[in-house]
Amino acid sequence: MSFKYSEISKRIVRSEIREILKWSRKPGVISFGGGLPDPDLFPIEDIINITKDVLTNKGYLALQYGPTKGEDDMLDALKQHMAEFGDHASTEEICITSSSQQGLDLLSMLFLDENEPIIMELPSYLGAIQAFKRSGADMRGIPMDDEGMDIEFLIKVLDELQNQGKKPRFIYTIPDFQNPSGITMSLNRRNNLIEIAHEREILILEDSPYRELSFTNKTLPSLWMLSEGKGVIMLKTFSKILFPGMRMGWMVGENVHIEKIIMLKQSVDLCTPSFNQLILGEYIKKGKMKKTIEKAIACYQPKSVAMLSALEKNMPEEISWSKPTGGMFLWLRLPERIDTKEIFMNAIENNVAYVIGRPFHCDNSGANTMRLNYSFPSIEQIEKGIHQLAKTIEKVL
Amino acid sequence: MSFKYSEISKRIVRSEIREILKWSRKPGVISFGGGLPDPDLFPIEDIINITKDVLTNKGYLALQYGPTKGEDDMLDALKQHMAEFGDHASTEEICITSSSQQGLDLLSMLFLDENEPIIMELPSYLGAIQAFKRSGADMRGIPMDDEGMDIEFLIKVLDELQNQGKKPRFIYTIPDFQNPSGITMSLNRRNNLIEIAHEREILILEDSPYRELSFTNKTLPSLWMLSEGKGVIMLKTFSKILFPGMRMGWMVGENVHIEKIIMLKQSVDLCTPSFNQLILGEYIKKGKMKKTIEKAIACYQPKSVAMLSALEKNMPEEISWSKPTGGMFLWLRLPERIDTKEIFMNAIENNVAYVIGRPFHCDNSGANTMRLNYSFPSIEQIEKGIHQLAKTIEKVL
Repeated sequence: MSFKYSEISKRIVRSEIREILKWSRKPGVISFGGGLPDPDLFPIEDIINITKDVLTNKGYLALQYGPTKGEDDMLDALKQHMAEFGDHASTEEICITSSSQQGLDLLSMLFLDENEPIIMELPSYLGAIQAFKRSGADMRGIPMDDEGMDIEFLIKVLDELQNQGKKPRFIYTIPDFQNPSGITMSLNRRNNLIEIAHEREILILEDSPYRELSFTNKTLPSLWMLSEGKGVIMLKTFSKILFPGMRMGWMVGENVHIEKIIMLKQSVDLCTPSFNQLILGEYIKKGKMKKTIEKAIACYQPKSVAMLSALEKNMPEEISWSKPTGGMFLWLRLPERIDTKEIFMNAIENNVAYVIGRPFHCDNSGANTMRLNYSFPSIEQIEKGIHQLAKTIEKVL
Repeated sequence: MSFKYSEISKRIVRSEIREILKWSRKPGVISFGGGLPDPDLFPIEDIINITKDVLTNKGYLALQYGPTKGEDDMLDALKQHMAEFGDHASTEEICITSSSQQGLDLLSMLFLDENEPIIMELPSYLGAIQAFKRSGADMRGIPMDDEGMDIEFLIKVLDELQNQGKKPRFIYTIPDFQNPSGITMSLNRRNNLIEIAHEREILILEDSPYRELSFTNKTLPSLWMLSEGKGVIMLKTFSKILFPGMRMGWMVGENVHIEKIIMLKQSVDLCTPSFNQLILGEYIKKGKMKKTIEKAIACYQPKSVAMLSALEKNMPEEISWSKPTGGMFLWLRLPERIDTKEIFMNAIENNVAYVIGRPFHCDNSGANTMRLNYSFPSIEQIEKGIHQLAKTIEKVL
């Protein structure tokens, strides 16, 4: 029997990265490939105790259907969590999502249509590219430098589109410690971006999974706060600051958008697990999050330093890389003539793995780039792995 | 600022039922409105213990990202659970979903396109109508009698479509103790349906949330088994047989479809919470599910009997209703001249609430019908509530 699939399904292809990452599981290989938080940081004892409390006192709620928007306790807790990092929102402006990826899924459904333009960074988050590609949107990439999105280039693209009578449905950006590049958008660029977006009435999607993981005790104001909540939707998640296994995220935006998101979410999963919401809500209300994040920073910061100095020590002159001040990733740029996919198996032979850079580019560029993760490997592995990677690259050069 | 939304978002409207159900929370009102399992059945002590074990022994897995298809332990457990109810599948044929609603969401994305026909029962599950409507599919309704879908009518619709050069993307059915009608498809109809679907190469979606909740110690073979796994995709969930608060469901189908579902699911939520999967997997492996289901049946069966005899005793002659032999719902049919939405506030004044029937009809018919839930109210409430409902209807007649 043969069945007919949808147009949407034709736009979804197997991830090249997932295929290639299988090699990184080869015994002896040091992998900078994944994007996994360090499981040593998971506060298992606390979660056992909180789960017991939640089930004992609120089991009838925790195991029942809940509101599509989220449990009140959790919405309050999220408000409190954000406020500690300078982001203020009312509960009317928040909707819980089953992972931040679901936020991208819902926003893709809410805003995108086939052939309609959107703007994103070069490179950008893979899961966002997947969710947006599904809709058939016309993804336009904007290059970045050390301060984030190239604003001159952005204006050029917007003008071009305007000449064709078009306007992007949104500008998608990850301003803090971006995945995959590790780059942070400067305050100046943030202000420029908001000014342009407001002027031209273009929505900004601010994806903000790493914001809390700053190594410098300093965080720039979010686009959400800089724009006073106007024309910005912010995506948040616990996956990087606590753990990903409960798939808990949230979305912040003007109530007019949130109301529509709630209606869409009903058709998507009715509601996010109340069980998981009440546990994490309690975790925040008990004041545990801040300490957890401090521990994560204390774990990742020296790893980032170790990777940066190993790169400094080992890499040939032609290679450049980003200098992240937070988050989990670092970005390596090789000479244009080198395709990081072609040399991937050389690296595996040298017992080191990375993620190829091209799939992070919505315009299929970036074949000479790669992403390195420092949150999962140990410092010893980082030192040894970067040495092996440098040897691999040297040989190819 | 004004922003442009997608075509999809225009097809989503606020649920009329949700609006109306707010009234059922008025103090003193006996509600037959919801579809909630009885929270007294939730095995809270067991879940506390299992969560502790899972976190202690496998916390690093439970709180980390997992495979999109699902955790191996959970896939094995689901295989075991299904086998106890006569449904056999390999783990290659299973994909975990974040609630069975997500299954509907993914299938809507995988198979549906604007204006392309699909077939469903009159009435049918509201969440399915929402998920399918989003795609702009042309939903064709087939009336039911006590044995389920009217096969003659189905053939007529299929022939009509064929004459227009069209074929439905799938036939969606809930054969066991259907929500909302409480009707079970007879074995004869099941065989007829499969024969027609195979002959014409049309996919069947078998939504099967209530299958385990049989009051007669008897369950008819699933469409999945009758068709030997060919041309059928089955949707399953824990929401009705255990509890909904972990939002855990699964999908069973030929591997060729499952592989595509996995790719789509990556863009939707990356993976379903490993935490929840490992807990429920352990619950099944410990042999707890069968006893839980027996308890649910022992709770719901007498409630259904109480509702049926209260209806028999109180309802005027012109009213007819379904006689469910399992599940959580019963279906009431009033004379055509009566609109159950129009008399809803009369019922509220008499301190009783139900769900209006029309929104369950993809063709907007069924204004004279209503759904009654017997799983949530107590037997005393059922007796009193049906009496009050009968009084309301009598007065209107």
